[in-house]
Amino acid sequence: MSEVHASRRTRLRERCAASGTAAALVTRPANIRYLAGWAPPGAALLLTPRQDVLVHPRPGTVEPGEGTPPGDLRRVVVECVDGDTAVAAADLVGELGADGLAVEEHHLTVARHRAISSVTPGIRLADLGQAVEQLRLIKDDDEIACLRIAAEITDQALGELLESILVGRTERHLALELERRLADHGADGPAFPTCVGTGPNSGAARHVPTDRRVEEGDFLSVCLGACYRGYRCEVGRTFVIGTAPAAWQIELYDLVFEAQRAGREALAPGVACRDVDRAARQVLERAGHAEAAQACTGHGVGLEIGEDPRLTPSAMGKLDACVPVTVEPGVHFPGRGGVRIDDTLVVRPSADGGPELLTITTKELLAL
Amino acid sequence: MSEVHASRRTRLRERCAASGTAAALVTRPANIRYLAGWAPPGAALLLTPRQDVLVHPRPGTVEPGEGTPPGDLRRVVVECVDGDTAVAAADLVGELGADGLAVEEHHLTVARHRAISSVTPGIRLADLGQAVEQLRLIKDDDEIACLRIAAEITDQALGELLESILVGRTERHLALELERRLADHGADGPAFPTCVGTGPNSGAARHVPTDRRVEEGDFLSVCLGACYRGYRCEVGRTFVIGTAPAAWQIELYDLVFEAQRAGREALAPGVACRDVDRAARQVLERAGHAEAAQACTGHGVGLEIGEDPRLTPSAMGKLDACVPVTVEPGVHFPGRGGVRIDDTLVVRPSADGGPELLTITTKELLAL
Repeated sequence: MSEVHASRRTRLRERCAASGTAAALVTRPANIRYLAGWAPPGAALLLTPRQDVLVHPRPGTVEPGEGTPPGDLRRVVVECVDGDTAVAAADLVGELGADGLAVEEHHLTVARHRAISSVTPGIRLADLGQAVEQLRLIKDDDEIACLRIAAEITDQALGELLESILVGRTERHLALELERRLADHGADGPAFPTCVGTGPNSGAARHVPTDRRVEEGDFLSVCLGACYRGYRCEVGRTFVIGTAPAAWQIELYDLVFEAQRAGREALAPGVACRDVDRAARQVLERAGHAEAAQACTGHGVGLEIGEDPRLTPSAMGKLDACVPVTVEPGVHFPGRGGVRIDDTLVVRPSADGGPELLTITTKELLAL
Repeated sequence: MSEVHASRRTRLRERCAASGTAAALVTRPANIRYLAGWAPPGAALLLTPRQDVLVHPRPGTVEPGEGTPPGDLRRVVVECVDGDTAVAAADLVGELGADGLAVEEHHLTVARHRAISSVTPGIRLADLGQAVEQLRLIKDDDEIACLRIAAEITDQALGELLESILVGRTERHLALELERRLADHGADGPAFPTCVGTGPNSGAARHVPTDRRVEEGDFLSVCLGACYRGYRCEVGRTFVIGTAPAAWQIELYDLVFEAQRAGREALAPGVACRDVDRAARQVLERAGHAEAAQACTGHGVGLEIGEDPRLTPSAMGKLDACVPVTVEPGVHFPGRGGVRIDDTLVVRPSADGGPELLTITTKELLAL
């Protein structure tokens, strides 16, 4: 893998050189992971024409999902609190012969940027912007393979939960059990805090599991994802507890299902991100649920669970092939609950069969 | 509680006024929680002489541990991604009649600071610095009461684990079980990712649980903590698996225990933080373990698990009464393992009986 990371660093150095700044300081952890294959907490990565240097605090034992220390990088271990590594790294720029340094102004704090300036007299500081995030947008085959495995693990964990007794258990316990099952099946850990919502909490985005217990007749919404070798996927499903769903539950479920399918079917290279949102959203709006609909229809996934592109009404830009995204429309009525259906897919041209669905758990309305 | 938060905001406004800046923009989540009693993800808090405003994205359902929406604050809900709330809040400064705005330069990114400048023409931006963190340093009785409950929950979860079979189980499963038990006993959630290390992984700070299984004769180190109403505590213990510890295990354990006791006994109002570190560290150094000793002997706890004060060789400042800290010296030998013992205590004057131990799980060397 380390050749992959080296070539990514080369591409970034070329971008920097093209914009007139020889050296770059990368501090955003997912970006470091992408460029170095390893991002111990508090690390900073310095790229210069002469040498690349990973500065990090004395690490604990390395986490399996954390990647492995790169062999082709100079490593400097410093005894310091998180973030001061950025200053220590910047301190090396002069000796490495660079006269300019591009930093991640969207990640560096004002205070740290000032500290970096103070250790780099005579060196021009520039903004690296989202250059690394842009490199991360389109995934290579190895990255997509990791996402496939993450999705398999996620489907397995969810599938096992559906075979267990749910009535009477709390949202928090169900969430913890799902996270245990993710680990059982080989996840580094959960890709994000597992969301379980029952009854009035069902269908709500950003719901944090409570001690509410699952009851007969509830909607039960779960949203979880595995992190595998740093790559994060997401699946969300809504079920009905009991023998038969109520009429309003079937109606609402079918509507959200239709919206989610419209979103999935809109995924193609060259399509505007906002048009994917539109495809899903208009189904909910036509049914009069504009208010209850979520603000965001989906987002990119990869080394972070919330990456570009954003599938929202105000999103700019178009989709590319080999970009993994979620499609997760939902409707939530305060006090009553709702439905969310969430898949992770990879954008593919229709010549390749169209969008590749990674999360294959059934989207029929199951009564559990 | 909301009077408490209102009076905290008043103290901060007074500090700002004294330093010549009428308005303050607070973006660090723990600081918002401290001042408003509630910090939904992505919120920003604006304090002005005329009015305080909490700007936040449309929240999901409110997490129990997240606090409750304050009644005495103007709330502005914006549809935006995390962080843009800071810009939306700054946008209100003019209409609220302030000509200066202090921001948290140690938390705001350079890019966001620039965006704030662009929406506040004619308004002088200043640095709020760590003003809120300084207010948070000394805890009131209600805060310490929350920490006591967090410690009780933590001791209960750990105590239950010790009664179960450990041999053959993986570090990751033990960590997940501990986190489930924390939830069972009423924690909002874990205060930090639970650390379980066995055999060669024992005693390592920052160890991330792996699939290694507990074996006879292992050292087993666990470090966990409950979060209760936002307040986080920490306990760490090391055990021996099997009937009888080996001589080297007893020797190493007694040494770390002595170091940890020296650190605990050094806690008193007016004592320099570095002297607490010194008291513990010199025990380990005398035994020739300077290299294997951890860089940090302890730290403050509260709404964040790693707060000021820091108990390190280079730490500045002195301890105050009613400051909760951890004392957690450890020794780790790569490939061989080690011992860590970690308690959360509240600094008290000797007249009040000296340091108050919150985490009461036994520190005898148990063979499990």
